[in-house]
Amino acid sequence: MSCNASETLIECKGVIDFPYSERCCETRGLAFFDDQNGNAYAVMSAFIAGFIGLVVVTLFTNQVLREPRGTEHMQFVSEKIHAGAKAFLHKEYFYLSIFVAVLFIALSVLLKGDDDEEKYDGVYTGISFLLGAILSASAGYFGMFIATKANVATTQACTKSMNDGLRVAFKSGAVMGLTVVSFGLFGLSALYIIFTIEQEPEKAWRYISGFGFGASAIALFARVGGGTYTKAADVGADLVGKVEAGIPEDHPSNPAVIADNVGDNVGDVAGMGADLFESYCGSIIAAATLGYAEYRYKKGCGGCYGNAAVALPFWIAGMGVLCSIIGTFLVRTNADEKKMTPNEVLDSLLWTIRKGIFGASILVVLVNAGLVYMTFGSFTRDGNDNLPWKIYGCTIIGLAAGNIIGTFTEYCTSYSFRPTQSIAEASNTGPATVLIQGLGVGLISTAVPLITLVVTIISCNALAGQYGIAISAVSMLSTLGITLATDAYGPVADNAGGIAEMCEEDVNEETRVKTDALDALGNTTAATGKGFAIGSAALTSVALISAYLTDVQNKLGAATFDVKIDEPVVLSGVLIGGTLPFVFAALTMLSVGKAAATIIYEVRRQFRKYPQLKDTSWKPPAGVPEYETCVAISTEAALIEMVVPGSMAVFVPAGIGFLLGPKALAGLLVGSLSSGTLLAITMANAGGAWDNAKKYVEKGGLGEGKGKRTSYHEAVVVGDTVGDPFKDTSGPALNILIKMMSLIALVLAPKFQEANDGEFPEDWWIGMTILLALAVVLYFFQVWSTKRYARLEAELAAEEPASAAGVEVEMTKTKDAKAAAVAAI
Amino acid sequence: MSCNASETLIECKGVIDFPYSERCCETRGLAFFDDQNGNAYAVMSAFIAGFIGLVVVTLFTNQVLREPRGTEHMQFVSEKIHAGAKAFLHKEYFYLSIFVAVLFIALSVLLKGDDDEEKYDGVYTGISFLLGAILSASAGYFGMFIATKANVATTQACTKSMNDGLRVAFKSGAVMGLTVVSFGLFGLSALYIIFTIEQEPEKAWRYISGFGFGASAIALFARVGGGTYTKAADVGADLVGKVEAGIPEDHPSNPAVIADNVGDNVGDVAGMGADLFESYCGSIIAAATLGYAEYRYKKGCGGCYGNAAVALPFWIAGMGVLCSIIGTFLVRTNADEKKMTPNEVLDSLLWTIRKGIFGASILVVLVNAGLVYMTFGSFTRDGNDNLPWKIYGCTIIGLAAGNIIGTFTEYCTSYSFRPTQSIAEASNTGPATVLIQGLGVGLISTAVPLITLVVTIISCNALAGQYGIAISAVSMLSTLGITLATDAYGPVADNAGGIAEMCEEDVNEETRVKTDALDALGNTTAATGKGFAIGSAALTSVALISAYLTDVQNKLGAATFDVKIDEPVVLSGVLIGGTLPFVFAALTMLSVGKAAATIIYEVRRQFRKYPQLKDTSWKPPAGVPEYETCVAISTEAALIEMVVPGSMAVFVPAGIGFLLGPKALAGLLVGSLSSGTLLAITMANAGGAWDNAKKYVEKGGLGEGKGKRTSYHEAVVVGDTVGDPFKDTSGPALNILIKMMSLIALVLAPKFQEANDGEFPEDWWIGMTILLALAVVLYFFQVWSTKRYARLEAELAAEEPASAAGVEVEMTKTKDAKAAAVAAI
Repeated sequence: MSCNASETLIECKGVIDFPYSERCCETRGLAFFDDQNGNAYAVMSAFIAGFIGLVVVTLFTNQVLREPRGTEHMQFVSEKIHAGAKAFLHKEYFYLSIFVAVLFIALSVLLKGDDDEEKYDGVYTGISFLLGAILSASAGYFGMFIATKANVATTQACTKSMNDGLRVAFKSGAVMGLTVVSFGLFGLSALYIIFTIEQEPEKAWRYISGFGFGASAIALFARVGGGTYTKAADVGADLVGKVEAGIPEDHPSNPAVIADNVGDNVGDVAGMGADLFESYCGSIIAAATLGYAEYRYKKGCGGCYGNAAVALPFWIAGMGVLCSIIGTFLVRTNADEKKMTPNEVLDSLLWTIRKGIFGASILVVLVNAGLVYMTFGSFTRDGNDNLPWKIYGCTIIGLAAGNIIGTFTEYCTSYSFRPTQSIAEASNTGPATVLIQGLGVGLISTAVPLITLVVTIISCNALAGQYGIAISAVSMLSTLGITLATDAYGPVADNAGGIAEMCEEDVNEETRVKTDALDALGNTTAATGKGFAIGSAALTSVALISAYLTDVQNKLGAATFDVKIDEPVVLSGVLIGGTLPFVFAALTMLSVGKAAATIIYEVRRQFRKYPQLKDTSWKPPAGVPEYETCVAISTEAALIEMVVPGSMAVFVPAGIGFLLGPKALAGLLVGSLSSGTLLAITMANAGGAWDNAKKYVEKGGLGEGKGKRTSYHEAVVVGDTVGDPFKDTSGPALNILIKMMSLIALVLAPKFQEANDGEFPEDWWIGMTILLALAVVLYFFQVWSTKRYARLEAELAAEEPASAAGVEVEMTKTKDAKAAAVAAI
Repeated sequence: MSCNASETLIECKGVIDFPYSERCCETRGLAFFDDQNGNAYAVMSAFIAGFIGLVVVTLFTNQVLREPRGTEHMQFVSEKIHAGAKAFLHKEYFYLSIFVAVLFIALSVLLKGDDDEEKYDGVYTGISFLLGAILSASAGYFGMFIATKANVATTQACTKSMNDGLRVAFKSGAVMGLTVVSFGLFGLSALYIIFTIEQEPEKAWRYISGFGFGASAIALFARVGGGTYTKAADVGADLVGKVEAGIPEDHPSNPAVIADNVGDNVGDVAGMGADLFESYCGSIIAAATLGYAEYRYKKGCGGCYGNAAVALPFWIAGMGVLCSIIGTFLVRTNADEKKMTPNEVLDSLLWTIRKGIFGASILVVLVNAGLVYMTFGSFTRDGNDNLPWKIYGCTIIGLAAGNIIGTFTEYCTSYSFRPTQSIAEASNTGPATVLIQGLGVGLISTAVPLITLVVTIISCNALAGQYGIAISAVSMLSTLGITLATDAYGPVADNAGGIAEMCEEDVNEETRVKTDALDALGNTTAATGKGFAIGSAALTSVALISAYLTDVQNKLGAATFDVKIDEPVVLSGVLIGGTLPFVFAALTMLSVGKAAATIIYEVRRQFRKYPQLKDTSWKPPAGVPEYETCVAISTEAALIEMVVPGSMAVFVPAGIGFLLGPKALAGLLVGSLSSGTLLAITMANAGGAWDNAKKYVEKGGLGEGKGKRTSYHEAVVVGDTVGDPFKDTSGPALNILIKMMSLIALVLAPKFQEANDGEFPEDWWIGMTILLALAVVLYFFQVWSTKRYARLEAELAAEEPASAAGVEVEMTKTKDAKAAAVAAI
């Protein structure tokens, strides 16, 4: 065989059952991933992009930290929040490290192979797991660190201009966003380079799946624990501080006010960050696993495409980081709250943020064309030489799908549109109809995102198979550097407003108008961000499930492993999987109430200890109130409450996989993907819509005399209270559940055994042991925690016999006021 | 080959690829279904049992109709309810007949085969469809007829003793129960006998699947339309009558009171009856289809088992009817409301009902052993001579599963247990926590029923394959004659109480205590019945999905038709299927509000026209208030509101089947089975628990001073109001959705075409046409109905400008009273 002068003769390496000619001519300069160093080369782009990302992070961090930080009092409050956030994270990470250590040992033991070649499988996967956990935790820590530093800087910057405030807050958000993507790319590419020194890429990806699992372990703590923390602190602060003691929101006299502000960061910075870190890494892992499996033996005039298929997601993600960085520079506003109405300011700010995201997206669209051409440009097989363009199509579909889901979420939850307005109008007939309308909106709002997902799946599959689906997920998440920045921006702006409120003597009214405007922007981007997080989690899970099945098929042989939906064991898996999100949502929802109760007791205790706190004109000296105790108590409660749902999420899929086999587990994953996504969308959208329906009523959307302190407002407040755990605890926790279970399946895939129809696998006893141990441990834990709450309640009853009556009298008072207001209409 | 004297030499007929010897010796007297007349003989048992059932129905009807019917006023009220129910059914059946006619034509055209042999396929399926629809509608009509006659007889009988009241009410329930099962058995066996004169049993079952579809068309109208009707009337009567006008519940001055009482019958008699008629017939159809497919070529020393496999479900169902009849005679109580506390009376009555159900169940367990031995007794293949006992195991598992799900539902929704009490206690912190706790209970209560279903599916599959699963569903429903009687009993007792209330001058206080006790029993059995209905619907759907896949595989060849869960088109189907119940639940939930609005306008109109109605001491002359208008208006509103969800349920699965192929449809069925069952359980249990939490608070369960007219009560009332559409409209409607879609798939199975991965089937344009037409029609319908509501609202606004203010003042009044009550604690 001889080639033209412009071509090189190449051979395909490691080919086993390759149906095409094993040698062919290659046009130089294209598809350069099949040489000796192809493995390292394939992911080098990501390594470099991660490095550039971190340089920018350092730059931004430096800028944010050098910003002026206002008066002493402002710095004092900010330091309290900062210290509270650190306290939460230190305590959380302490328990987390135990959890991670246990799982590390479990993985090392469970995955240890029998022969020489496989004997380090467990340890290698375990190391990936550790690195994933450490990087995700560090990104969260760093994001919280900068967010709790930037809040007061934002308040101070707002004394100058809105643009200054926006830039500081957004820059700190960008630090979080870029840290997440840079750490993700760094970790994945480093592991791949190291593992492929000695191992086949296929095996390397099996190890690296542990990285995703490590990320999801952190996400579990950040989302489930953090979600419980934030709402427990919120409810505790409101119920005792605002309702019982009658002091205003965000007032420094409220002992739980710092915990409440810490909670905002915990949920929307660390929680959202860890969630999307998991999706980001998960989608890349799935794409690389699927791509290598599909293309390792396929070649056209460009060699084997295994490395090209691995390289593409890294290139897309890596260039996405650079596009995101450019996008962040587009975020600057000339909105002027003096010349514009609040709505105009919000629209202007929204446009500012969108400018950044759209800019980054357009760049990604342009760049991706080049990337696809570079990797798959010379692929020609079966006359299928349109493959590059088909894959490119998948990247565009993925980006579009993410934007459609995000925009539709905004439609459902913003009070500029009918759905949320209809909920507000239902307050006409009381809280029950507000709830029915809200649940209706939440349930029906699943249609558009799910149809979008289905169209994405079907069209990407038609274009480029399951690899195409995975690539669309990678592409959807490629601008994460900037989309996550808009999420992490929210709590900074929220805290900035809180600080302005708490330090009202240090900042003028104008500044508070500015921080309020920035906060309103944060609320809108938060809703969009939640939709995007769910959509990307679902698409990532689809790709991870495919990767899991590919792995199992590789091990058991594709012919013997058909997961037919009509096999009773698969159907049973679907039903079990469908049930898990329902139970998980229930547990997390009920947790909030229990955790909030412990804070309520503590806040009441402090009000008894320092009665002068109720006098809001009194200035508390240092150490009064004891903010730290509230932070510590909510942290403890949140961590206790996450034991049951958290351990279920980890051990049920593992147990079912061993007990009923990998087919049942595949069914479980699909079932939980479906019902988890649906429930997450329902809860997030209903919660968001209730929240904004309340704001709509407060802003006078229903017309004269139907605003605050009327029966209308009372009704929408009930909706908002129900919606809080929906949108901030249970809904986001479901994202983690569906991804985490897919990742556990992927990690344990090589260990599952298949049985004949109607029989149990050989290792069923492992599964049985896991499930029984789980049941026993959870039972005793439940007994213990029930006793704990009973003890707390008894202590409370002994200490303050009049407290319950106190609440009632207070409620009566509120009601009288309301009744009077209504009568006055 | 020669046989012993006690044996006969038999040959297996119609064998194509039969791997065993084609002739063998048979012990006479066993497995007698393979002679020439086997087909007719196989189902003769059911034919006879149906006949006996109808004899008993006539007997019971006669007895109920001859019961004394109280004073003239009582008869007047009862006649109004009776006439209202008839008016509702006549109007509903008018639209229903159009719907049925359209579907009959559609089936006849769509299923018309190309060659001579198949050219009547469409017509035969259409005839089955018509018969199923007619029988289900007749059973509903007859059940409503007798229930609305029995209500006043029950009130009158209660003036004698509680036992007399119970017997009358229960007997009328038994009429409904036995009519349903007898009609079902009659219809199915007659069609089978007729179709097998000329056709193979396989083909006969394909035609008969139309019967199930016909039943589900009626169930759709009865459950969705009926569910909207009952809650709209309830809300309308309460909101204007009780809240605005301040007249007591069930007072004859309320123009919507008759509509409200009719609604009880519509939902729990006609709705529940049609729902379970569908499950009952569906499970038999699935078992026969699966059994014939699996056993037609299998034989041991007993001939081919095709007919035996068809016969077994008919025998189980037929003997079940007889066992149910015996069970009804066990229902008699000696509870004495004078010597016992209300709780003791309830326990005693519950035990009375359970005696009947348990008695029938024990008989069924005994009889089934004989039936299995008789049909499969001589089956020996591959040394698998335990098959009869394995199948017998499936019948017991099915019965047990039904009872476990029913009992667990009672645990979740009865205020004797923790879940409901915890909801009531959450009223301590207001309506929002009541809602959160209730939703939490509803969501988590899915775990036990789903695990029960999974264990049933896995164990029956291990014992006897998919046929075993279908048989377990048949067995679960075999005592339907008596379990349905306990459901249909509820509204009769409820109405009896209502009549006692409306005719307080004709009956004494003692009688009302008795009717109240009977009503309380009805509320408890209603909750259990709902759990049972969902469980049996899910298991029936599992069997129907298997039957559908068997049919498609028969047509396309099993080798080419693997529904692999990881194929994107199947996964997409699962996601679409999962979404449908969420959308369906939202639509039905929101419908209630819209339909209720129209009744509110009408009731207000009548209060303006007859202002003297508000004076409750005034006796209305005949024709005042105009009860009939309220009935007509709720009927119309309910029928309008069911157009969107109803047509979605029918046309979306058909459209997807043609557009994306039978694999996607299989995914859709599994997805909707999973999320539909979960959502139905969540809604039914949350709704039931909220309802009973309210009753718990009213009965003083929270302690002194925490009952009616306190903030506690106010909070649980909100829960109850949200729960009403949950448990009586959306939840039950989901049962129909999942079964109906499986039946549509089964009926259309022969027409679907498969395509290669990534391509569309040849007939995709049919699917596209169906879906587009649906979208267009629904769009214009939505525009029309929105305009209609807007017009109604405008009319209202023009006529009574002060009405809105009226509500508010009323609400304020209520609130002041409540505030005063709370302050007084």
